[in-house]
Amino acid sequence: MDPSKRQKYVLVTGGAGYIGSHTVVELLTAGYAIVVMDNMCNSHLEALRRVERLAGRPVQFFKGDVTCVSDLEKVFSLYNFWAVIHFAAIKAVGESTRIPLDYYYNNVAGSLQLLRVMKNFNVKNLVFSSSATVYGEPDICPVDETARVGPVTNPYGRTKLFVEEMLRDLCNSDPEWNVCLLRYFNPVGAHPSGLIGEHPQGIPNNLLPYVIRVLQGRSPFVHIYGSDYDTVDGTGVRDYIHVCDLATGHVAALKKLDTKPGCVAYNLGTGIGYSVMEIVKMMEKVTQKEIPYKIVDRRPGDVAVCTADASLANRELGWYPTRRMEDMCEDMWRWTRKNPMGYDGQTLLDEDEEDDDDSSNSSNGED
Amino acid sequence: MDPSKRQKYVLVTGGAGYIGSHTVVELLTAGYAIVVMDNMCNSHLEALRRVERLAGRPVQFFKGDVTCVSDLEKVFSLYNFWAVIHFAAIKAVGESTRIPLDYYYNNVAGSLQLLRVMKNFNVKNLVFSSSATVYGEPDICPVDETARVGPVTNPYGRTKLFVEEMLRDLCNSDPEWNVCLLRYFNPVGAHPSGLIGEHPQGIPNNLLPYVIRVLQGRSPFVHIYGSDYDTVDGTGVRDYIHVCDLATGHVAALKKLDTKPGCVAYNLGTGIGYSVMEIVKMMEKVTQKEIPYKIVDRRPGDVAVCTADASLANRELGWYPTRRMEDMCEDMWRWTRKNPMGYDGQTLLDEDEEDDDDSSNSSNGED
Repeated sequence: MDPSKRQKYVLVTGGAGYIGSHTVVELLTAGYAIVVMDNMCNSHLEALRRVERLAGRPVQFFKGDVTCVSDLEKVFSLYNFWAVIHFAAIKAVGESTRIPLDYYYNNVAGSLQLLRVMKNFNVKNLVFSSSATVYGEPDICPVDETARVGPVTNPYGRTKLFVEEMLRDLCNSDPEWNVCLLRYFNPVGAHPSGLIGEHPQGIPNNLLPYVIRVLQGRSPFVHIYGSDYDTVDGTGVRDYIHVCDLATGHVAALKKLDTKPGCVAYNLGTGIGYSVMEIVKMMEKVTQKEIPYKIVDRRPGDVAVCTADASLANRELGWYPTRRMEDMCEDMWRWTRKNPMGYDGQTLLDEDEEDDDDSSNSSNGED
Repeated sequence: MDPSKRQKYVLVTGGAGYIGSHTVVELLTAGYAIVVMDNMCNSHLEALRRVERLAGRPVQFFKGDVTCVSDLEKVFSLYNFWAVIHFAAIKAVGESTRIPLDYYYNNVAGSLQLLRVMKNFNVKNLVFSSSATVYGEPDICPVDETARVGPVTNPYGRTKLFVEEMLRDLCNSDPEWNVCLLRYFNPVGAHPSGLIGEHPQGIPNNLLPYVIRVLQGRSPFVHIYGSDYDTVDGTGVRDYIHVCDLATGHVAALKKLDTKPGCVAYNLGTGIGYSVMEIVKMMEKVTQKEIPYKIVDRRPGDVAVCTADASLANRELGWYPTRRMEDMCEDMWRWTRKNPMGYDGQTLLDEDEEDDDDSSNSSNGED
């Protein structure tokens, strides 16, 4: 018998992407046998090569698209899966208002295709990449998992909410299904090695990637939307979570599936809020550079403060984030300095050819 | 050039089904060139034969499934469409809680496939079969189109709500799209000819089909869920709409698309509520038969009264329902007597071999 049929694998869709690649490192390190499926439309094989280097193990990779039933049937025929971690999705909020059909097709119809094939192959354990955006504008902060979901203010967020609701209905209809919905707050940072991180694409919507862009001289200043909120310094407060902490959250969720929990949702956040201004100042300290900013009008739909009550994940998953905001900023900056174009362009220097990060921090010649 | 390429057609998905077939009669009578696409999983070719007889015109039929992109591409390549009326869906509320994945796949992923192909063929006019179920438990009655939508209590209803929201996002992203969302209240009745009607499938959830089932001796009594509501006789009050009135609503919505309205929602109901007990009594009068019933507990999620404010459809579509509750009951009973097994089993007698409906009403030997 083919050995891949004896071993039980975890399928990781979108495993070459930002959160996916960091999670794959943690899964391999924890000893899981995994297969990455990715359509590479928004990710890079180089990320997987670096994941292999970090984990010291090869990654089994299958190029395929979750919207393509024959791709799914092929990979499910090749390997014996016991669970799926489903990252594959498109995720730019602004773009989702311009091309909503693509978002619904990739994220919703793609998830439905995946679920149908999982059902046909009797694989009924799933960790789903959801988002705090399903809460819309929460009434209470910190927000916990019992809060009302929706209405959501953009198509991207609706794709996440719709898939959550479909998964809940599916679990209600068939007790053999077990699903962890992981509601990410604001994922930032990069692997501390500087080998993997978020590949910049287009003009980012999110604060920290935008700050990076300004630091690279690719945008003139950071927009700060509103400075008259009822917060420490008037700017909006959010809950940022290090991508490596998110990654360990997925390993914890995978373990949770063994207890047959049905459909369960977990917030993944630190519970600690930082204001936009605090982040800008922290990035200035980390980079030793001045970050120009401009205060502009509030954006509709923005709330003053949004932080996670992640005590359920603490209790039920035994998961605790360990990286501080400083770590997030430093790791993000290290990744950026080492890979100013992300995975494009230059190949990463071997580690032994690199300057030590801290010593090079104030002496590098960028910008 | 192929003449089918010169003429502009309307595609009617699910056009062989209950509401679809009645709408096709009205469309043909109004002179529209149409093509019916149906996968026949829940409908009968006999319905289309009878539609042809009623309209005195042939129906162009294409067997195909909206979840199948190659079926869609084929029919869009064969004909030059200017609009689509999208009925194709599965619709049993109870079943949707048991097999939600099938509901989401057929109704949501199917609609997304249709929309993608429409976009690729530059067909951006749509009438969508929605439902009053999108209102969930309305706060105010009669409910108008400005009411909050959701939360919806069953997967079937969620498929309708999700497609509505996708369509709204699509129209917001591209002003070339025009979409009428038609929110049906409780469709009942049949064509007054008795030639077409609702084909019974499984045990019905809805009151009137259930009453018919009891009248046919196939169930012992009608369940009345609660008799202590604050209504005329304590039983729940709903807004029933004759399927032929719904059909003319679709013709009116199709005309509305010419005015490029963007995304617009219309309630299709009479605005007049009837209680469960009033319906049972009216059916007893129409059929001259006693209808056994049993009062049981209220069902969770049921409201006392739910009726439509359809004044927007009156004003903007120039649409007014013309059939009374008595017509709905009589037409439904005529269809049932002529077709006790729906489209299955016996072929319908030619009309000239039939007794007159009224004279046969009290003398037929059934039950």
